[in-house]
Amino acid sequence: MNNFADRLIKQIKQKNSRIIVGLDPRLDLIPAQFRPAQARNDKSAAACITRFNKALIDLLHNNIVGVKPQSAFYEKYGPWGFKAFFDTMIYAKKKNLIVIADVKRGDVPSTAQAYAEAYLGKSSIIDAITVNPLLGRDSLDPFIKLAARNGQGLFVLVKTSNPGSKDFQDQVLSDGQRFYETVAQQVVEWGKPLTGRSGYSGLGAVVGATFPDELKKLRSLMPHNFFLIPGYGAQGGQTEDIKSAFNPDGLGALITAARSIIYPASFLNGQRDESPKIKNWPLKVEQAAGQMNREINTLIT
Amino acid sequence: MNNFADRLIKQIKQKNSRIIVGLDPRLDLIPAQFRPAQARNDKSAAACITRFNKALIDLLHNNIVGVKPQSAFYEKYGPWGFKAFFDTMIYAKKKNLIVIADVKRGDVPSTAQAYAEAYLGKSSIIDAITVNPLLGRDSLDPFIKLAARNGQGLFVLVKTSNPGSKDFQDQVLSDGQRFYETVAQQVVEWGKPLTGRSGYSGLGAVVGATFPDELKKLRSLMPHNFFLIPGYGAQGGQTEDIKSAFNPDGLGALITAARSIIYPASFLNGQRDESPKIKNWPLKVEQAAGQMNREINTLIT
Repeated sequence: MNNFADRLIKQIKQKNSRIIVGLDPRLDLIPAQFRPAQARNDKSAAACITRFNKALIDLLHNNIVGVKPQSAFYEKYGPWGFKAFFDTMIYAKKKNLIVIADVKRGDVPSTAQAYAEAYLGKSSIIDAITVNPLLGRDSLDPFIKLAARNGQGLFVLVKTSNPGSKDFQDQVLSDGQRFYETVAQQVVEWGKPLTGRSGYSGLGAVVGATFPDELKKLRSLMPHNFFLIPGYGAQGGQTEDIKSAFNPDGLGALITAARSIIYPASFLNGQRDESPKIKNWPLKVEQAAGQMNREINTLIT
Repeated sequence: MNNFADRLIKQIKQKNSRIIVGLDPRLDLIPAQFRPAQARNDKSAAACITRFNKALIDLLHNNIVGVKPQSAFYEKYGPWGFKAFFDTMIYAKKKNLIVIADVKRGDVPSTAQAYAEAYLGKSSIIDAITVNPLLGRDSLDPFIKLAARNGQGLFVLVKTSNPGSKDFQDQVLSDGQRFYETVAQQVVEWGKPLTGRSGYSGLGAVVGATFPDELKKLRSLMPHNFFLIPGYGAQGGQTEDIKSAFNPDGLGALITAARSIIYPASFLNGQRDESPKIKNWPLKVEQAAGQMNREINTLIT
């Protein structure tokens, strides 16, 4: 099945899940059992991160669509961290998860070509990456071409979940539209060659759960593009806020969560109070993911 | 001297140069003497890149302000490539060059914090990085704070050199301004706390040499911000096009060039025709940089 959107839909239906778990490792929050015994350096930090991620993947892979490691948290540990980023994705792919590398790259065409080869090359285990559209069509072309050839996907930043997204993305243009709307219209156009049998395009959009009105507007502007939706849970997005993200077919959106699942609050509280509760971490992770899945599936009629 | 703009100006005056050399390694263009003897893999590719970059730095360090490795060309070779990226920057710093990591990162605040720590951390050998402003003020704050604390700089994408920059950066807003102008105004504002004794801010802007009219307009909008100017040489920007980038004090702009210096055309032609001419590469590189320096310095009155 050589189309990203089609592959995604198969996983969603098989698992009855619309969750992508963000793998954003933070050494200070990772349970003690994964932490290095020796003094902390980039190599031991990276080994700790890989152990933690593999444990998360083992716990969750049957009940989630995929994982989204955020490269910043790996680049922080230099080449060793970058290795952990890829080791994590290789392991996730072995478990048949959809792998979305959250790299948000965007550059002039010749450089974008190098980025595209880095993340969407033929032997890549990555299903999709996030990209930044600020540099325009020619800066996304190398990604779109390689993704189309290899059946991979892209999620273009359209309306991000942070409060500061208003500064530039919400600018009103001379025709009365918002800046993010013109980006959205271009994504629809550029995504047509990546359309699968399902009718959905492999060119998706990042749209924050934190702006429900904009989300609703974008759903109607982009009916056949998948949304990758951050901001649910820890960033404040509620279940009702993301209702409009789904099409009547129950498809069209992937809800991401990192902190609220991989460092579940009930575990963190326990960890602070009583160290034996660290043993509860696997259970709390499974419970957090299960609860989120049920919450989201109540929106699917 | 704990301000990036001040440090930059000292180097510019000392060397009478306004050139930043882009280190964008392409294995197919690197002269044969640096290429690996064994079969090509990420490790040997990275070793070849590091050798090539060190040779370039040895040849050029007395006559250029600094270097700008573009991370895409290193990420392409995985963790080994990422190591070559840092090894290159460590070597450049040893030679007292200004080191600008061209990473164009930009993300939601918690992730931007991780990126800032990755590239602008206390022990960093990086003087400045490029950042993408699309996610707004809060997405740049972690970079600005760390840069201010450590005397580092940032170059915010304002008007990029590629033709596609017109798609979104040139959008006309409801007040009649272009999108890139509103970004420019914000950069001026946000850069004030990074102002050095020189009166210049450590918060700079990326502005392409390929759009002379926009460059002129931006110079007057942002008199105290340094411009990092790609697009000269291989991308088509001419000497006259960048005249307006400089303030009357001969400061305010850094002109970058990669392909036209590190793979000089006269060398490439020779390489294709006659292999012994590979020996000419060091001379051709020095000549290309020297010529560019003279061309640019004719603009300084």
